[in-house]
Amino acid sequence: GCMGLGGGWNTNSISAGDIKQTEAIIECCLDEGIRIFDHADIYTYGKAEIAFGQVLQQSPNLREQVSIQSKCGIRFEDVHGVKRYDFSPQWITHSVEEILQRLHIEQLDVLLLHRPDPLMQLEEVAQTLIALHRAGKIAHIGVSNMHAAQLAFLQSALPFPIIANQIELSLAKPGFINASIEPTHHYDGMAEYAQQQNIQIQAWGALAQGQFTKEMNNDVSMNVQHTTNMIIQLAQQYDVSREAIVLAFLTRHPVSIQPIIGTTNLARIKACAQVNRCELSAVDWYGLLESTRGNEVP
Amino acid sequence: GCMGLGGGWNTNSISAGDIKQTEAIIECCLDEGIRIFDHADIYTYGKAEIAFGQVLQQSPNLREQVSIQSKCGIRFEDVHGVKRYDFSPQWITHSVEEILQRLHIEQLDVLLLHRPDPLMQLEEVAQTLIALHRAGKIAHIGVSNMHAAQLAFLQSALPFPIIANQIELSLAKPGFINASIEPTHHYDGMAEYAQQQNIQIQAWGALAQGQFTKEMNNDVSMNVQHTTNMIIQLAQQYDVSREAIVLAFLTRHPVSIQPIIGTTNLARIKACAQVNRCELSAVDWYGLLESTRGNEVP
Amino acid sequence: GCMGLGGGWNTNSISAGDIKQTEAIIECCLDEGIRIFDHADIYTYGKAEIAFGQVLQQSPNLREQVSIQSKCGIRFEDVHGVKRYDFSPQWITHSVEEILQRLHIEQLDVLLLHRPDPLMQLEEVAQTLIALHRAGKIAHIGVSNMHAAQLAFLQSALPFPIIANQIELSLAKPGFINASIEPTHHYDGMAEYAQQQNIQIQAWGALAQGQFTKEMNNDVSMNVQHTTNMIIQLAQQYDVSREAIVLAFLTRHPVSIQPIIGTTNLARIKACAQVNRCELSAVDWYGLLESTRGNEVP
Repeated sequence: GCMGLGGGWNTNSISAGDIKQTEAIIECCLDEGIRIFDHADIYTYGKAEIAFGQVLQQSPNLREQVSIQSKCGIRFEDVHGVKRYDFSPQWITHSVEEILQRLHIEQLDVLLLHRPDPLMQLEEVAQTLIALHRAGKIAHIGVSNMHAAQLAFLQSALPFPIIANQIELSLAKPGFINASIEPTHHYDGMAEYAQQQNIQIQAWGALAQGQFTKEMNNDVSMNVQHTTNMIIQLAQQYDVSREAIVLAFLTRHPVSIQPIIGTTNLARIKACAQVNRCELSAVDWYGLLESTRGNEVP
Repeated sequence: GCMGLGGGWNTNSISAGDIKQTEAIIECCLDEGIRIFDHADIYTYGKAEIAFGQVLQQSPNLREQVSIQSKCGIRFEDVHGVKRYDFSPQWITHSVEEILQRLHIEQLDVLLLHRPDPLMQLEEVAQTLIALHRAGKIAHIGVSNMHAAQLAFLQSALPFPIIANQIELSLAKPGFINASIEPTHHYDGMAEYAQQQNIQIQAWGALAQGQFTKEMNNDVSMNVQHTTNMIIQLAQQYDVSREAIVLAFLTRHPVSIQPIIGTTNLARIKACAQVNRCELSAVDWYGLLESTRGNEVP
Repeated sequence: GCMGLGGGWNTNSISAGDIKQTEAIIECCLDEGIRIFDHADIYTYGKAEIAFGQVLQQSPNLREQVSIQSKCGIRFEDVHGVKRYDFSPQWITHSVEEILQRLHIEQLDVLLLHRPDPLMQLEEVAQTLIALHRAGKIAHIGVSNMHAAQLAFLQSALPFPIIANQIELSLAKPGFINASIEPTHHYDGMAEYAQQQNIQIQAWGALAQGQFTKEMNNDVSMNVQHTTNMIIQLAQQYDVSREAIVLAFLTRHPVSIQPIIGTTNLARIKACAQVNRCELSAVDWYGLLESTRGNEVP
């Protein structure tokens, strides 16, 4: 997750320090076995990609060591109008060109459509993605924040598989994990769709804004306190960081879940990387689920 | 939308004035390029169809200029029991016969099943609709107020396509338009189903009870005030009526959305017809969506 | 429904009286034409199955007169951890072996997976069920408390049909019956899926904790009072028990709904069995639906 790179969400220009930070983060990630970097055209208003691109330029061997994805389709409020989504061929094509330029690369490993645009013209979008794919500008396609029905709809017009859906998912917001066990009549079956179609779920907000891993203050709910204490205990038991436990709740699920980590803190990145050597037992996984739900499973 | 024709929801008999009004409305609609008329057996307790039928009788050339749809399946509280739905073969067949008699026509262009009846026997309903279709009494079949799963279920037993689903949809109640962008796990994919199956969405309540087009009083919410002001501005910009802007929010969507207009006011009908020369820009469409949501898109 | 057999949810050992009670209940059921007995490994902590098994042992001809189903997959809080679901091959296989031993039978007519386990490994579960089926230990497979998408997912890996989904459903909690007529955008289509796939819905809690059939006290809501009075009247009209009316609301639905009755009271079992000679008219069915909703259908 590169949403913090390039000097923050402001219009300051990128400093030499920002580049150094990006370099250090990339190096740290590679050391820890993390090689997928998640961008979006809007992150720090494009500066995240620019900073990353400058590091790529400085290190000719770096490109082949990393997998780079970015996203387009969200347009912030501007002189033309309010915040909106834009899946027009012009905007998608323009966005990809700009992303490639900022990153100084020839091809994105994955392009994600950032939010479902109700105004999407299916055939137009499909033709645009196919053209970008043929031109070698994107290797794979994914989406973000979509429902199962929307994934299936877009897939119906594409000759290559949608490989990922990036959604908010964490121990604090267990989304489809919890929805699947609640006996309602309105669960859209995302977990099952992802498994059947071999779609990776990328979890944004995977660390839950750090609420389980930072120092507790008295303001937090009993739920968060209880869950945090359980995490501290599990971290000792599994001999990993608290961050690793928070992420292991996701990676234990049979859906292929890839946590996205937004931090720029090197120590925290290292802490997160420990999830790779932590597979929770089913019993411990249910312990965390019960704790974050605030009551036992039905 | 003919739900106001025939002298209102009462048991008064139809007056010559009611017939005159119906005639004037039909004439006005045809002048404005509106040729689809939406009935239901229950509208003004059958009087809407009777008034419409009398005008058809008086004007032998009128039938071929208009497309007429009606609905059956809702039974109001009566001596037999409470308000209910009735998809029994007897009731559907009886209802269609009565509709045709009241309208003085040989064939309905479209018959809609008005509300999903939980007691529907699939095969019985399918055989009934097929028989009515073969007998030439209905040209096409649609439904109303159904979920995607219900449409697919009924379609599975029919040899001809369900062509429409009439649901409540407006700028005030954006239904699936808003549901599709909210990252929940319980969206049934109506927009995608309609596009894939080529099903027209007919929007009842499309003018949102006039809340954006009548004089504002102080009681209305900040949301409605803000949206109304935006509509006034857009109406000037696009050089159309406020009603046209309210409806253009629907017709701009890639799903084929046909607004249903309930008014009997000729000036208002003309105002609505201006939607045909108004295609909102994506930016303006999102402006309206943000305003009616009360907050920007996610 | 055998959840009350064997002396209650405690650790007392089973008494001769408990066995006698079980025997009397089975006899009563068979007299009333009820031959399906619904167990679960957890009911009265296994004692329900043990008591039932002892009666089966005493009566060599009984086994062929009854259809026995049981469930596994829920594990209560224990020394290992919190309440959880466990669809591991080891646990399912172990559970079935124990169920067969407790019941003193060679084969379960139906095994239900009790609650959807988010950690389910599809292929593992499928192979386990196939092996149990091949070994003759289970004749049929069903599930409980699952969504339509979960049923379809599990079915995709099985060579034999899932025959049932046991969910909470009653006049007090009309679940999908009510969801199907509410014009939301989040109904998962359980009623349609069950009909298309020929899946029986087993209704647990079918008597709604007796709230419509016991003596009314002043605490109950106006809704329950009104519905109870309607039930009393319908019971007279159809010349059946109040329990039969409560259950007939379920069995009247075109989905194949099998009510599960939890009572151990012989008089009440007999009262319930009267549902077999009671088919509600559509009008009366809608009367009950309106009453339990507290307002008329949309």
